[in-house]
Amino acid sequence: MKYHITLLIELKDGILDPQGRAVEGVLQGLQYPVENVRVGRVLEMELEAPSEAEARAAAHNIGRALSNPVMEVFVVEAVKELA
Amino acid sequence: MKYHITLLIELKDGILDPQGRAVEGVLQGLQYPVENVRVGRVLEMELEAPSEAEARAAAHNIGRALSNPVMEVFVVEAVKELA
Repeated sequence: MKYHITLLIELKDGILDPQGRAVEGVLQGLQYPVENVRVGRVLEMELEAPSEAEARAAAHNIGRALSNPVMEVFVVEAVKELA
Repeated sequence: MKYHITLLIELKDGILDPQGRAVEGVLQGLQYPVENVRVGRVLEMELEAPSEAEARAAAHNIGRALSNPVMEVFVVEAVKELA
C-alpha cells in the first residue's frame, strides 16, 4: 500500500523564531491583528507500507530522524491511503 | 475572539524541489521506501477576528500575501477558536 504522509516540524515554544518575528512584523504592517507567528517546515511524501499502522510508525521514525530534539517538535499531521 | 491559524505554503507540483530531493535521498539512504518528498513552510499564528468566518477569510488573505502565486500554493490547514 502507498500512503501520503504530512509531517510538520516546528520550533519548540520558547525557542526564539526570528523568521516568525519577521513575518509577524510584515503582517502587522499590513494591518493584520496577528501575534505569536511561528514558521516551521512541512514535509509531504509518499511512503510504501503494508498497513496504515506501519505507515504511521514509519512517519514517526522519519519525524524523529529529520527533527532536532533539542529545539524542534514534529507532528504526524496526516496519513492517507492512496488509491 | 482569538483564533489559532495553521497555514501551509508549498511548492506547486512540477516545480523542482531540491530540498525535498535532498531529504528523499537521506530517507532512502536510511531504508525508508519514500518518494515524491516535498518540503514547504508551515505558519502558525494567533489572529484576532470577530468570527470564525472572518478569521478564515483573513487567513486566506495572509496566505495570498505570503506565498508566491507563480511557484507556490497555500492551504489554510486549520482555524481553531482559542479559549
